Amino acid sequence: MQRTLVSETPENVGKEVLLKGWVNTRRDHGKIVFVDLRDRTGLLQIVFSGIPEANDLRSEWVVEIRGVVKERPENLVNPKISTGKIEIEARQLKVLAKAAELPFDTGLETLNVSLPTLLDYRPLSLRHPKNQAIFRVQETIITVFRETLKKEGFTEIQVPTIVPSVTEGGAEVFKLKYFDRDAFLAQSPQLYKQIVTGVFERVFTLAHAYRAEPSVTTRHLTEYLGLDAEMGFIDSYKEIMEMVEKVIRNVFQRVAEDRKEELDLFSATIPELAEKIPSLTMREAQQIIFERTGRDNREEPDLEPEDEREICRYAEEKYNSDLIFITHYPTKKRPFYTYPDPEDPEYTLSFDLLGRGLEWVTGGQRINDYDTLVENIKKRGNNPEDFEIYLQAFKYGMPPEGGFCLGAERITMQILGLENIREASLFPRDMERIDIRLPKKEEEVSPK
Amino acid sequence: MQRTLVSETPENVGKEVLLKGWVNTRRDHGKIVFVDLRDRTGLLQIVFSGIPEANDLRSEWVVEIRGVVKERPENLVNPKISTGKIEIEARQLKVLAKAAELPFDTGLETLNVSLPTLLDYRPLSLRHPKNQAIFRVQETIITVFRETLKKEGFTEIQVPTIVPSVTEGGAEVFKLKYFDRDAFLAQSPQLYKQIVTGVFERVFTLAHAYRAEPSVTTRHLTEYLGLDAEMGFIDSYKEIMEMVEKVIRNVFQRVAEDRKEELDLFSATIPELAEKIPSLTMREAQQIIFERTGRDNREEPDLEPEDEREICRYAEEKYNSDLIFITHYPTKKRPFYTYPDPEDPEYTLSFDLLGRGLEWVTGGQRINDYDTLVENIKKRGNNPEDFEIYLQAFKYGMPPEGGFCLGAERITMQILGLENIREASLFPRDMERIDIRLPKKEEEVSPK
Repeated sequence: MQRTLVSETPENVGKEVLLKGWVNTRRDHGKIVFVDLRDRTGLLQIVFSGIPEANDLRSEWVVEIRGVVKERPENLVNPKISTGKIEIEARQLKVLAKAAELPFDTGLETLNVSLPTLLDYRPLSLRHPKNQAIFRVQETIITVFRETLKKEGFTEIQVPTIVPSVTEGGAEVFKLKYFDRDAFLAQSPQLYKQIVTGVFERVFTLAHAYRAEPSVTTRHLTEYLGLDAEMGFIDSYKEIMEMVEKVIRNVFQRVAEDRKEELDLFSATIPELAEKIPSLTMREAQQIIFERTGRDNREEPDLEPEDEREICRYAEEKYNSDLIFITHYPTKKRPFYTYPDPEDPEYTLSFDLLGRGLEWVTGGQRINDYDTLVENIKKRGNNPEDFEIYLQAFKYGMPPEGGFCLGAERITMQILGLENIREASLFPRDMERIDIRLPKKEEEVSPK
Repeated sequence: MQRTLVSETPENVGKEVLLKGWVNTRRDHGKIVFVDLRDRTGLLQIVFSGIPEANDLRSEWVVEIRGVVKERPENLVNPKISTGKIEIEARQLKVLAKAAELPFDTGLETLNVSLPTLLDYRPLSLRHPKNQAIFRVQETIITVFRETLKKEGFTEIQVPTIVPSVTEGGAEVFKLKYFDRDAFLAQSPQLYKQIVTGVFERVFTLAHAYRAEPSVTTRHLTEYLGLDAEMGFIDSYKEIMEMVEKVIRNVFQRVAEDRKEELDLFSATIPELAEKIPSLTMREAQQIIFERTGRDNREEPDLEPEDEREICRYAEEKYNSDLIFITHYPTKKRPFYTYPDPEDPEYTLSFDLLGRGLEWVTGGQRINDYDTLVENIKKRGNNPEDFEIYLQAFKYGMPPEGGFCLGAERITMQILGLENIREASLFPRDMERIDIRLPKKEEEVSPK
């Protein structure tokens, strides 16, 4: 007999079906046992009567059940789940695998455990419908990113993560032993996506990026998934912003359409977007913040977290937009390849997209002239030889180009309103955890 | 004026267009200069007459050209390219970027350089239409893998590559410094995809895998892209093989349809497939090889490379199939999680898919019982504590499950008939190369 998925049962009223899944919860009412069965498509109530083995069932046991699909009486309909109008009258039960006693109650609508416990028991906690929902939303975000760019003529590329030298300043880098020498984990696919822009003009890649930042925040992971895109033959950095807006609009629309149930679990709403996402230069933003709050950061080289939150509030009030572009960050705060504004080279043709108080996307136009790049690398105290392959792409003719990057976990977190980015990573890595909490290094024994 | 792509020019005969791209080749005929312009959609002939700047153009310069689309006289039609019936009469030329003198002739149908040179000049060599074609085929393979599995109810997941301990024997592993301790690069996403099978039942992931094997072969990379899938609630390992066959058939069909031009560049043909891919146990295969060649490997625990080639020849002759499944590899040659055949536990419910003499896919059913896994880990001299997160998934109820993995570069290489897997990786890593050839470590200075 073919398996019927939970989501398919409502179309099978009156028929016998074979169901497979996990015991989500079990309740006894005298001789009758009620089980909420969970499979990848949802939850479904099973009624056992006269099947004594059903008394042994515990949460997370894996079972196969034969039974008949029945309509529930009107007064017992459960409007919260899509199978709430029916239930299964069980005929046969087979246990496929048992489960140990659970460390916490998994039957609640929201798990009542701390974040460390949630992560200590990741294989179990991920099974909870609300945690599953996070990664279904993430899958949709990633899928829409890809589909939007493919339609715009982008080619999906695969770039390496082991790199020969440290090429981007700022964040710390992980070092690895590569046979008899050192290598590093890429901080981003930036240089490779630029090289391949010289081949396919428009490229995107989903690439793991690694940051050895020795701090623990609610917004950073040591390994994360970057959604990176780069496009050649642009006339202006504004074309890149338009592409970002296209991606974000499509993501919002599709998440709203395809992931309504998941959004509801978090009482999350898709961010508001104005007809066109508003845009300010960093200096304009600082001026507005000064006027609104009296806080004078007009000489600062970057927006502080409180500034980002304030300018998001402004965008909401003034433009009814949860998102806003900030452009023209100072040249000295941006990487060596960032294109200076010809009208004022102290500022760059770069941008961040802020939303709900946090950075969502970063991007900009890049320098495509070989000599200028070599000069900039030297100016920042780096050795052009460490950039040999990168520089080659420009030596042999590179069009005007630019691109952008979104963090997959960051966007998921922001859309769902999660408190900690770790919730948006299946197996988050930070300074203190790789799957399990890292044991502290033992104190060295001091000589007596 | 809007840019017109090369591929769009044939529909614009008689019109003025704005083209952007690279000079692929330049030929002079007296006062007339002919340029083959290359953009992401193909090649197109431009004719310059009375534009003296055109004489300065060199290969790989980046240009913008305004001109009028003209039909070529019948006798000058070039049937080799899709724009062969037209050419552009140039009116205006603008140079967007120049290129240095090239290290080799990029205008040939096939680049005439050694593999090391090809890789030393990767940003340039990738631009050659034949090298571009490899990665367009690869993109199609990856896209079809995803689309096929999504249609079959699989969820795409993202798993980490930094892992806390070495969990799979055999291949060597890269070690990295993770703050004040050691961590490792994952040899495969295997354990994580199994864990998440306990959540979504059917999952797939595109994951970088790392192998520190200290040897240089034509078929191995130290960093490669695995196309990994895993499925729960199976009744038999044969369901996994059926899923593999579905993926492979779809890949072949789509590559044949969408990448005909690319296949032609390599004179490549899609492998033949029988109505159903034939299947033999390893012992049956060894018996057949013995009967065909007299080579007696019937007691060997694995197929040797020559055996794999011979059994592929057999499959072609007997079944008219370029692919063949080999099943039931010995338990001691497979990882600890491989499911033993209940009828003969010395062999496993595992398989390889061989094609054109090489392994394409590997897979099998996994042990889903917690106690058996713990026992197996101990038996192989490993510590179950190093598998804490993995084992949790089984402790809390895991259905019967199994899965498979394809190497993206390997499949690309095999479909196109490339000689070396490095050609199928944008930026291949091996013992001797990370982008550039790794300098040999200097001999230690010996004391006098």
